Amino acid sequence: MPKKIVVALGGNAISSGKFGGDVPSQFAQSRITAVYIADLIDAGHHVLLTHGNGPQVGTVLRRVELSRDEVYPIDLGLCVADTQAGMGYMICQCIRNEMVTRSSDVTATTLITTVRVNPNDPAFENPSKPIGQYYDEETIRERVETDRWVVKEIPSKGFRRVVPSPKPQEILEIDLIHELFDEGRVIVCCGGGGIPCFQDPSGGYEGIEAVIDKDLTSALLASEVDADTLAILTDVDKVCLNYGTPNEKQLDRLTVDEARQYREDGQFPEGSMGPKVDACVDFLARSKNPGARAIITSIAGCLDALDGKTGTHVIRS
Amino acid sequence: MPKKIVVALGGNAISSGKFGGDVPSQFAQSRITAVYIADLIDAGHHVLLTHGNGPQVGTVLRRVELSRDEVYPIDLGLCVADTQAGMGYMICQCIRNEMVTRSSDVTATTLITTVRVNPNDPAFENPSKPIGQYYDEETIRERVETDRWVVKEIPSKGFRRVVPSPKPQEILEIDLIHELFDEGRVIVCCGGGGIPCFQDPSGGYEGIEAVIDKDLTSALLASEVDADTLAILTDVDKVCLNYGTPNEKQLDRLTVDEARQYREDGQFPEGSMGPKVDACVDFLARSKNPGARAIITSIAGCLDALDGKTGTHVIRS
Repeated sequence: MPKKIVVALGGNAISSGKFGGDVPSQFAQSRITAVYIADLIDAGHHVLLTHGNGPQVGTVLRRVELSRDEVYPIDLGLCVADTQAGMGYMICQCIRNEMVTRSSDVTATTLITTVRVNPNDPAFENPSKPIGQYYDEETIRERVETDRWVVKEIPSKGFRRVVPSPKPQEILEIDLIHELFDEGRVIVCCGGGGIPCFQDPSGGYEGIEAVIDKDLTSALLASEVDADTLAILTDVDKVCLNYGTPNEKQLDRLTVDEARQYREDGQFPEGSMGPKVDACVDFLARSKNPGARAIITSIAGCLDALDGKTGTHVIRS
Repeated sequence: MPKKIVVALGGNAISSGKFGGDVPSQFAQSRITAVYIADLIDAGHHVLLTHGNGPQVGTVLRRVELSRDEVYPIDLGLCVADTQAGMGYMICQCIRNEMVTRSSDVTATTLITTVRVNPNDPAFENPSKPIGQYYDEETIRERVETDRWVVKEIPSKGFRRVVPSPKPQEILEIDLIHELFDEGRVIVCCGGGGIPCFQDPSGGYEGIEAVIDKDLTSALLASEVDADTLAILTDVDKVCLNYGTPNEKQLDRLTVDEARQYREDGQFPEGSMGPKVDACVDFLARSKNPGARAIITSIAGCLDALDGKTGTHVIRS
């Protein structure tokens, strides 16, 4: 039986400092990433891909911002949609091209994905996710007044807009995604955590100004499609305790209880390893698959991690 | 047996003068369009949707343009991708919400779609499709020098960039689209004619600066998925001869031979009814379905047109 792997790519899989940030550099980085994804496919796994969009959505927001006096602005949800399309297109093209060099006709396709959140999620009371550029105090005051932005001062850097980051509740396209994953099609979905929406009392869906953590959406996705493995790929091969200190210690295994304890101890910071560990714990809690496992590792380490040779394996107990 | 209908929505289905052009107005127009699409679904048809993106891609291009000194530009193909996502998201949300009011759980999903063109298409020798804003002579000269744009002077309006509009050769995601269409899933694909790419000698695909006519892509799509009907929806109920003159005559039927003759006579202008008629002729020529038919009508007239009550029906003979 093929293994069903949900692979969550970090922003670094598509845009790394190495190549700069523009479109040719994103293609260059995506081509490297595609080699590792192709290795997973060639190993016989069913691969379902998600991706972050930090640098890219920042760029979309800046374009909207810089042209706001002349062109109508677009909602945050539409900015996320833009990045799902652009990044999905790049990733799919690079995977297809890599498979061509391996004489395979495997293709990959991007699905635009919408994710329902709860409008009563406490995150809406406490917007915390910084997005877009830094502003000086005068400009950001204008935005606060005209657009009712919530903003945050980052010492010595300026002011930034912060938006709610509610928990993902439901992936609207899950039924189709599940079907295609089971068929073994390579699908890119849930980019940037998904386009956030809420359900109004009539049962209809509407966009909402928020961003959803892509790792938490990946955990929801992986449990809903009954994945064997959630692989969260990042810059490092393993999760570390005391990261960046002389006492740094790489973890091969991490139980759900240990993960929760370390989280409370402040070992895994927000906006970095914290949500990745949370997503692994969340996947294991949700999944009905008795063999389910969650791995945090690097892109280059992913195939070896599936064989238990590297990565941090988060396990139920 | 359910009928398989490929519906090509014009830009007016998502953005009409009535509501202005911003995002809320596009949603307002899309909600109206969704009612007619829902009627098709409720009538038992399998519906596969494509859409134009004229106003929207113009807006994306303007944002890229207005921010080019501060943010890296993106290729035309990525601009098309952006509109596939944003418009697809809107259309799918509005269809879903309309179906909810009808106590149906039918959903719609957007697929990012890439279309191969022939790099030796004569269109590359003669870029003809105007895109983006008007420029003064000085600014456009800069673009010609720095970005090697091909430009065209439009008397009394200024200068505009023109890009090649090659014929669509292959829809890269056709296999998946065909499968989902046969299953009866409502899919939005090929937005803006598809993201153009070409195949390099190694067999890999790469983006190319061009735009593809959405009606011609719709014709290719409809033949490849073995549709019963290609319905090209526009502002008018029927194609007219001598359009806008005292001798105007609405056409109920138009054979392929008549269509070709009228085209030669200059009855159906480029950038308007011309490519729609061409697309119908192309579909009928390509399709192996003996009952295949092509209809040009308004969104509001579509369901009646399927029953033969309105619209211009293009027929083989």
